[in-house]
Order: sequence, then C-alpha cells, then structure tokens
Amino acid sequence: MENSTFELQYALDTFYFVVSGALVMWMAAGFAMLEAGLVRAKNTTEILTKNVALFAVACTMYMICGYAIMYGGDIFLSGITGDGVADEWTYAPSADFFFQVVFVATAMSIVSGAVAERMKLWAFLAFAVVMTAVIYPVSGSWTWGNGVAGSFGECGVFGLYTLGTPGDTCPADMSFVRWSDFAGSGIVHMAGAAAALAGVLLLGARKGKYGPNGEVHAIPGSNLPLAALGTFILWMGWFGFNGGSVLATSNVENANAVAVVFMNTNAAAAGGAIAALIVARILFGKADLTMLLNGALAGLVVITAEPSTPTALQATLFGALGGVLVVFSILTLDKLKIDDPVGAISVHGVAGFLGLMLVPVTNGYKVVDGVEEGAATYLGQLAGAATIFVWVFVASLVVWGILKVVMGIRVSEEEEYEGMDIADCGMEAYPEFVKG
Amino acid sequence: MENSTFELQYALDTFYFVVSGALVMWMAAGFAMLEAGLVRAKNTTEILTKNVALFAVACTMYMICGYAIMYGGDIFLSGITGDGVADEWTYAPSADFFFQVVFVATAMSIVSGAVAERMKLWAFLAFAVVMTAVIYPVSGSWTWGNGVAGSFGECGVFGLYTLGTPGDTCPADMSFVRWSDFAGSGIVHMAGAAAALAGVLLLGARKGKYGPNGEVHAIPGSNLPLAALGTFILWMGWFGFNGGSVLATSNVENANAVAVVFMNTNAAAAGGAIAALIVARILFGKADLTMLLNGALAGLVVITAEPSTPTALQATLFGALGGVLVVFSILTLDKLKIDDPVGAISVHGVAGFLGLMLVPVTNGYKVVDGVEEGAATYLGQLAGAATIFVWVFVASLVVWGILKVVMGIRVSEEEEYEGMDIADCGMEAYPEFVKG
Amino acid sequence: MENSTFELQYALDTFYFVVSGALVMWMAAGFAMLEAGLVRAKNTTEILTKNVALFAVACTMYMICGYAIMYGGDIFLSGITGDGVADEWTYAPSADFFFQVVFVATAMSIVSGAVAERMKLWAFLAFAVVMTAVIYPVSGSWTWGNGVAGSFGECGVFGLYTLGTPGDTCPADMSFVRWSDFAGSGIVHMAGAAAALAGVLLLGARKGKYGPNGEVHAIPGSNLPLAALGTFILWMGWFGFNGGSVLATSNVENANAVAVVFMNTNAAAAGGAIAALIVARILFGKADLTMLLNGALAGLVVITAEPSTPTALQATLFGALGGVLVVFSILTLDKLKIDDPVGAISVHGVAGFLGLMLVPVTNGYKVVDGVEEGAATYLGQLAGAATIFVWVFVASLVVWGILKVVMGIRVSEEEEYEGMDIADCGMEAYPEFVKG
Repeated sequence: MENSTFELQYALDTFYFVVSGALVMWMAAGFAMLEAGLVRAKNTTEILTKNVALFAVACTMYMICGYAIMYGGDIFLSGITGDGVADEWTYAPSADFFFQVVFVATAMSIVSGAVAERMKLWAFLAFAVVMTAVIYPVSGSWTWGNGVAGSFGECGVFGLYTLGTPGDTCPADMSFVRWSDFAGSGIVHMAGAAAALAGVLLLGARKGKYGPNGEVHAIPGSNLPLAALGTFILWMGWFGFNGGSVLATSNVENANAVAVVFMNTNAAAAGGAIAALIVARILFGKADLTMLLNGALAGLVVITAEPSTPTALQATLFGALGGVLVVFSILTLDKLKIDDPVGAISVHGVAGFLGLMLVPVTNGYKVVDGVEEGAATYLGQLAGAATIFVWVFVASLVVWGILKVVMGIRVSEEEEYEGMDIADCGMEAYPEFVKG
Repeated sequence: MENSTFELQYALDTFYFVVSGALVMWMAAGFAMLEAGLVRAKNTTEILTKNVALFAVACTMYMICGYAIMYGGDIFLSGITGDGVADEWTYAPSADFFFQVVFVATAMSIVSGAVAERMKLWAFLAFAVVMTAVIYPVSGSWTWGNGVAGSFGECGVFGLYTLGTPGDTCPADMSFVRWSDFAGSGIVHMAGAAAALAGVLLLGARKGKYGPNGEVHAIPGSNLPLAALGTFILWMGWFGFNGGSVLATSNVENANAVAVVFMNTNAAAAGGAIAALIVARILFGKADLTMLLNGALAGLVVITAEPSTPTALQATLFGALGGVLVVFSILTLDKLKIDDPVGAISVHGVAGFLGLMLVPVTNGYKVVDGVEEGAATYLGQLAGAATIFVWVFVASLVVWGILKVVMGIRVSEEEEYEGMDIADCGMEAYPEFVKG
Repeated sequence: MENSTFELQYALDTFYFVVSGALVMWMAAGFAMLEAGLVRAKNTTEILTKNVALFAVACTMYMICGYAIMYGGDIFLSGITGDGVADEWTYAPSADFFFQVVFVATAMSIVSGAVAERMKLWAFLAFAVVMTAVIYPVSGSWTWGNGVAGSFGECGVFGLYTLGTPGDTCPADMSFVRWSDFAGSGIVHMAGAAAALAGVLLLGARKGKYGPNGEVHAIPGSNLPLAALGTFILWMGWFGFNGGSVLATSNVENANAVAVVFMNTNAAAAGGAIAALIVARILFGKADLTMLLNGALAGLVVITAEPSTPTALQATLFGALGGVLVVFSILTLDKLKIDDPVGAISVHGVAGFLGLMLVPVTNGYKVVDGVEEGAATYLGQLAGAATIFVWVFVASLVVWGILKVVMGIRVSEEEEYEGMDIADCGMEAYPEFVKG
C-alpha cells in the first residue's frame, strides 16, 4: 500500500513535470512571435529561423554536456534514460531533464530579440552553442546545480552555494540561498539579458536608430498582433516555468505552493501590464501597446524570483513595480544608445534584478521540516546577482569577441538595408504584401 | 494511509484546477486574435491593447473585491493565501481563486469584440473595472456563489438560489438549481453578451455599416488567419473552461464526468461548425469562414450549460442547433442595426440562452449520493436566464450611460475614420503593409 | 484502501488522457497555421476553412462509425457515455474516445496541405467524410484496433495482427507487432500522406509550378510567421500525441515511459531541425526557413514510431535522419512533378516510413510482465508499412476518382488564377493588404 502511494506520487509528480515542461517549451513560440512582431518585415524570416534553430541547438547542446555540467553525472550524454527508479528519484529522471532543457532554451531565446535586425545568423547560432553548452550551465551549477562546475570550494564563488548543500555553514548574510531565486529571475532571465547586453555592445545599434545629435528614432514593429500573441503565449507558458519550479506537487503542502505560484504569476503579469500602460499614458499621452506587453512580461520576470511567498496583492504590486521600471529602463537604454529592438535587456535583465532584490521582502526565512533555513538577505541577493551577471556577461563578451574576429557578427550595411531575410534566408516573410 | 489518499486527491484536484485555469487564461489570447482578425487593420493595435488590458484589469479587480462579493470571505483582498488546508477545502484555495479569476476575464473579453472599432479605449477600461469588480460578481453570487451579494432572502432573487444552499426548499419548478448552468452559458457568456449589448445600444453602429435605406454593408475582417487561430485557441481553452467546472477529478465518478465533458465540448464545437457551414452555404452560396468560426464557438457556448449529461451525439446536435441559430441571429441583429463587428452578442448571448434552455433535455434531475436533487426545469431556466440578463444588462446600461455623460464612450468621427490605432495608441499594427 | 488506489490511478490516467487529447486537438491549429502560412494569400481563407471544417467532420464521422469500426462496440454511436466503470476499463471510456478522435483528425489534416491551392473545397470535405468514417478506421483496426474490421483471420492481413491478440502465434518475423508503431508514424502519419498522394496524383500540379522543360518554380508561402507558429504548435501538440500513446501514466514504469517519450519527442524535433538547416545551407547556400520547419516536423514523425526505447541521443540522431531525408524527398517529389505545396507527403509519408524502419534498432523485443514479447523486425515493419500504404492509397484513389467523376475535384483555371478564396469562400483573407 505504501508502495502504491509512492508510485502514485511518483506518477503525479512526473506528469506535473512533463506538463510544466511542455508549457515552457511553448514559450519558445512566444519569443518567436513576440520578436517577429517587433522587427521590420524585411527581417522577419531571419528572426523566425533564429528562434526555431536556437531552440533546437539549446536542446541538443544541453543534452550533450550542459545538463551534466549543471547537475552532474557523466560529462557527455549522461544517460538520461529513465529506466527504473534510482533510489533518490521521486519522479522520472527524464522528466527532470525535459524540464531543465526547456529552461536553457528560454535563456537563449532572450538573446535573439536584443541582437535582432543586424546580427549574422550563423554567428548567433555559434554563440548559442557555447551559451547553452557551457555558459548557462556553469552559473546554473553554482546556484541551482550540483554539477561538475559547482565544486568551487565550500561556499561557492562570491558567496553562492549550491542547492546540494542545504546544511552549509557559509555566512548567511552573504549567501545566495536555495530560496534566493525560485524559478530563475536571475539564473535564467538576467543571465539571458547579460549575454544579450554583451552582444549588443559589440554589435552596435541598427542603422538609423540614433541620430547624430542623440535623437532616438522609433523603428516600429511590423506586425503587432504577433507581438501580442507572443506575449500571451509567454504568459501562459510561464505557469509551467514558475509552477513547475516548485519541483513537486503530490502532497498538500506542495499542491498549495503550486496553486499559489499560478495565482501569483498571473497577478504579477496583470500588475505589470496595468502599471506600464498607465506610465506610458502619462509619459507619451497614448496607450502604448508595446509598453503594455513589456510591462506584463516584466511583471512575470519580477515574480519569477519568488512566486510562492507573496500574497496575490503583493504579487500584483511587485509586478507593477516591474512594469514601471521597464518603461524607464527602455527609455534609459535608448539614451545610452544601447539598441535593443524588443526591450529584452530591460524586461529580462533589469526586471530580473528587481525580482531578486524583492525576494527578502516576503521570504526572509523559510521553515523546512520544522527547521528555519537560511534567510534570503539583500546582501546575499546582491552577491548572487553580481556573480551571475559578471560571469555571463564576461564569458559572453569573450565569445562574441572571438566570433567577431573569426567570422564577423554583423551583416554588411547593404544587407542590413536590404533586410536579413534575403541575405541570410533567401526568402521574404511576406512576399506578397507591398511595403509602405 | 487514509491521509495519503486525501493528500493525493487534494494534489490531483489542485493540479487539475491550475491546468484548467491555465487553459481558460489562454482563451484571452483566443479572444484577442479572433477580434484582431475581424476588425479592420486601422483598429487592430487598439483591440489588442483592449484585450491585454482588460484581462489585467479583470484579474486585479476580481482579486480586490470581485471574488469576495461572489464567494464570500473578507470583502477586500480576502486573503487567498493557500497557507495550510482549511478544513472544508479539498483542493488548494488559491487554485480555486485562479480558476475563478480567469472566468471573469472571459466574461469581460466577450464585451470588447462587440464594441470594437468605435469605442474609446479608456471608457472601455473604466467599464471593465466595474464589470469585473461588481456586476459579474453580483449575479455570480446569486447563482454559483455564496458571497456577500447572495443573501437576498431564502430563495434568492427571482427564484435563483445559491450553490451554498443545496437543501433549499424553494419551489423547484421556478428555481435555477445547481445543475442549471454547469460552466456558465448564462452566468459567464450571456452575462458578457448582455453587457456588450448595453454598450452597443448606447454606442451606435460603426460609420458606414448601415446605409440610409437599411442596406447592410459588410465590413470584412483584415486578417482571417488570426480569426481562425483565435477560434482554435478558444476551442482548446474551452476544455479547461468546461472540464474544470466539474470541480474535482480525483475519483472514478468525477474522472468520468471530466472525460465526458472534454468529449462533449469537442463534439458540440464540431456540430456547430458543420451546421453553420452548411446553413451559410445554403443562404449565401459560399463557404463562409467567419460563419464557420462563429458556428464552432456557438456550439461551445451551447454545451457549456450542461456538458456532462448528453451523449456525444446529443452534444453534436446541441452544438449544431447553436451553429444554425448563430447564423440567423447575426443576420437578425444586422436587420435591427445592432452593430456587433465580431458577432459576440449572437455567439455568447443567443447561443448562451439556447444552452440554458437545452439543459432540461438531458438533465431533468441529478442523483447526488443516492438522493435525487432539484430538477432543472424550463421555467427555472427561464427565470435564471431572465435574472442574469436583466441584472447585467440594466447595470451595464447605467454604467455605460454614466461613462457616456462623464467622459464620452465614442471616438470622434475623424478618429473613427482615421482608425483607433493612431488616435488611442499612437502606433499602427501593420505600419509597413500598404492598405488597399 | 485498494479501492482508493484504483480510483486515484483511474483518475490520474483519465486526466492524463484528456490533457494529451487536448494537446493533440491543438495540432489542428498547427496544421491550419502551417498551411495558411505556406500557401499564397489568395488561397488562405479557403485553406483555413478546410482545416476547421475537416476537424469538425473528422470528429463527427469518427463518432458516428469510425471508432466502432476501429475498436469495436456497436457500429453506430456506440454509446461512449462514461457512465460507470466497465470492468475492463482503467480510465474513463470517454477519455479514450476523445484521445482517439483527435488522432483521426490529425491524419486528415495531413491531406489538406498537399492538395492545397487547387482542390475544390466540397470535394475535399466529401473525401474527409469517407477517410475519417472508413478508410483510416479500417487500417487502424488491423493494427491498433480490435474492431469490426479487424477480424481478417488469425494473423490479420499481410502479417498484421491486432493489439487485441498479444498471445498470437503468427510468424513473428512477418508480424506488425504491438510495439511496431507506438504512436502512429505509419498508422496515422503515413496513412494521411498516402491519402494525400492519391489525391495529388489525380489532381495534378498547380498552374505554373513546373515549366515545360522541367523547371521547378518556387511558389513562396505568403506568411512565414504563421508557418513557424504552426510548427511550434505541432511541436507542442506532439507531446500529447506521443506522450498520451503510452496509454497510462499512473505507476512508476508508465510514468518513466511518459517522461522518456516527452524528452525524446523534443530531442528528435531538435535533431531534425538542425539537420535540415545544415543540409539546406549546403545545398542552397541559405538558411531555408521552410526546410528548417519541415526538418523539425520530420524529426517528430520519425520518433513517433518508437519514442520510448531510444536514448535522447539516439532520438536526436533519428530525428536528424528524418531532417536530412525530408529535404531530399521534397526535391525528389518536385523532380517527379508531384506538387505538394507544404511538403506533407515528404514530412508525414517518407519520414513516417523511416520511423517505422528505425523501430527495430532500439526495440527488437519488449519485456512485458517479465515475458519477452514479439520482436519488431525489419520484415514485419515492411509488411506493416506496405499494408497500411497500399490500403489507404488504393482506397483513397478510388474515392478521389469517384469524386472526380461525380463532382470534379479541381477548380477551374480561372478560379485557380483568381484564388480559391473568392471562388469558394467569397472573402479574402487579407482584404486590405495590397498584393505585390
């Protein structure tokens, strides 16, 4: 009978993981539609190609070595077979891999939007190989993981220590504890934004984006229904992203946590949307759809760091803070001439950082099996955020730099003018619709 | 051991609720795409903005007071925390809130299509605040709810009584019993349509829709793939809408009910699609895609009132009745010069009423724990339908009327001619595609 | 207590089935978007109409008789009621019907793309009636089924025998055993492609596709974001298609199998995408988006025959084989002047056959309850593939032929030139966007 209970829990938790993973996979479609809607028509085929191809590359590279670097096991093809139950597993090992592999794809999807409309397709895909095989898994290992990259001494790097050492005795006020980043505001979203920022800095702005006297020229997206669809897809997929990050659902405590996470994820997106809509109305006098969409996404990113401890009202307010911040961040990056066509650095990077810093507001400590465990502190969150950002940013800068020297990362001026679609893909996205 | 069984049931029911809720949330994307596809290009950004914003507003207002009005608890922010298990809960309280909150958003989404292409964005959002905070929760309380608005005397208003009083002794032949509207043909869909109708009557038709001699000018949708996509999204999301409304799935009886609901929801959509396609072919000589889509949606609305008792064949036929009715309803509304750009009043209002009236065909009584419970009667269904319609229609008329006086609800003629996108949002949806 | 365990398993398996079925239903949207993106603007309304209508027809005809032909029970409307638990059911009977009915719709969806841009709408729908009521159910009965069409002698037709006779003593090396086609590479996908091929051969190529001297003129798709979206939708829906085909998930063994299937389905799609991208780059010098998409789909089709026994690396490589093959298949069909606007015959037929032939690589035998059961052999796979193909192809050829004589299957030259949208549907998909 106890065996039956175990089997049912195992089965339910596994099913919960694969359903969550399928929802996260679906986010790849969301990024593709969002980015396809926000670029110009002449660059649409290429951004779609990038999005599909990066997802495929991420899944393959993470299988080949990323998962092993992050979570241990044999370094190559570590045999995620799901045959039998290893003693320590309470759900299918393959379900764990499936859930993790779609996370790395999410991190990589963030990059494609920021470097859109001027980066060479093959340089981008080469970066995707390194990002998903090594860069993301290494910082993932320091934080969530237990993998080969995690053995950096007892307290990890810069105060980070891994999920695998809950009894750790490192100074609590400097630690990035295991409640510090529930579903990856920093580990996934800010990491993706850091890689994107490095690429954007080496790449430069799109031709015509900034005038000689500091003017910022808006370059409108060519297909806003796609951008709205992409946002809705991401919103839906995020239930799997955050909900699945409870990591189990088969008892009352975990089921309650999963339900709270769904509720708060939704509430934060709503809060972010409303706040960004109002701020944009005040600043620009219009109901700016792209800011509304970015506000919803920023709300989602913010709550990702800790969706299980706020009340629904707190989640709405945290999301709203993200929605306000993202509008000002987008304006500020434009003043700095950091050209991010879809606002990915603001949405995932700046809001991701805000999310990390809001964790201690509701989650100063956590009781696990009756024992109060390591508190998430502001200092610890800062240390963790800095570590993730510096690692991913510097490593990415090196990789982008090498690619720039070896094969070039930017298309020619003529290709940029004509559009990436013809240059890289040989086909237009909308061949029959006359361009205005 | 019994405890384990309870925990597993609790966990499975909770997971079922959050998955269902995520599917219902996804319907918001369906409404957005359907409406974006059926309006003209010049009003597309604005309808997208409305759809995203109304969802955010609905989620926030229902959290602030709507849920409490409908289901009780503290009137403000009633503390949906999910901490611990309240004695009476057999699934996570937050999952219940999450499932309910996406329903109110559905009701509100229905409105946006009907008032499209000429209503001011901010007037619409102001209405959304009142609709989702008060109007929908009040009638929801009378029917499904147990909330502060439900205590209108023992037998409720006009024979309606609440789910909370199953042992009620009100006259059964006048009662809207707890089997009267399974998932909300009336409570959600017809309610949304009633609010929409009130708005449309105060708003008037779009310029050019009706000629001086009673001619009806078709105003074709600008992007039919979006409309088809929206319909598919709604079709899929409806599995959560109806399937989740069984409210539990963790034993054989409930699991069977959930499966029947999925099967019948699909069958009714199929029946509605085929019937509308054939009727439109007979009437117009063409395979009218928009009628096909509205037929599928009408089938879904019809079956929503009782998807658990018909056979699959009955569900198909009920859906087909809806598909036939919706075509004639759309033609009739046009004759009455009631301008509904997407057919929402016909799909959700007329078919919703049909759904309510079909319940007694298969569900004259219900056996619960061996006891035969209150029968759904034609008179009771009529009383319930009338109550919901009159309340929502009159309350909405008052709110729209106040908004009309205070801020105006209709854009200027020039703005309508130029398009809402520039006037309200400052950006075009398809800036590069030349208009024909 | 044992009863509780049974009830929970029943409930979990039922929930797993309906969620899987909803994902498969979602594939209908994927086919619709993929095909709408790959045809010309003037044929878009019509292809959308076909896709929605065929899904409705498939669901209705399979309910009326297809399910009974395939799996037995009363021949008409066999009473899928879900009332009570039949002794042999371990999940809701209606969930089984729901899961099966969306499979037949998938098979039919494959056809619509191949015959796009020149086939009469009503001839297509007439074929859909026969295909989903009889043709697919008959070969389905021989392989997966146990229905009225399955009683062709002890060893079935050409060595196929049914799932219902696991103790069969037919010559193992000639048998299409019950591990031969896990989720339907042959039974669903190749069957759909065989029906499509028969239609295409009788229909002929689109005007202008092939020049008088054997030139192949590319006819670019009009809306590539829709094609990419469709591919992502199919990718996601395939988790239900393959994952649900484990047929149970409520114990450790089945849960592991489901998780492996999700992981491998994803891996194969990734492998197919990467391989097709690289092959197309080598052949054409460009990153061909449509080949990338077809490569991902081919990977999915290939793994569908056996997603539970390969490792993730094997699944990636099998998918990659599919991705390579599909590119060459598309080029070859064009040389043969077999005009398939979306590549459906290559993706579902050729890759489906490859999938069947790869099964013995990882699944030479299977241990069930400690007993080694019938091995999948190359000869048996060939026999099964030939049987399915010949039956569906010949039966379809007869039906298309009758339709050609009775009502005609091809639109007039003028209608083809003007576009199907005006001729068949009376409305354009993009009435405001000027055509180039």
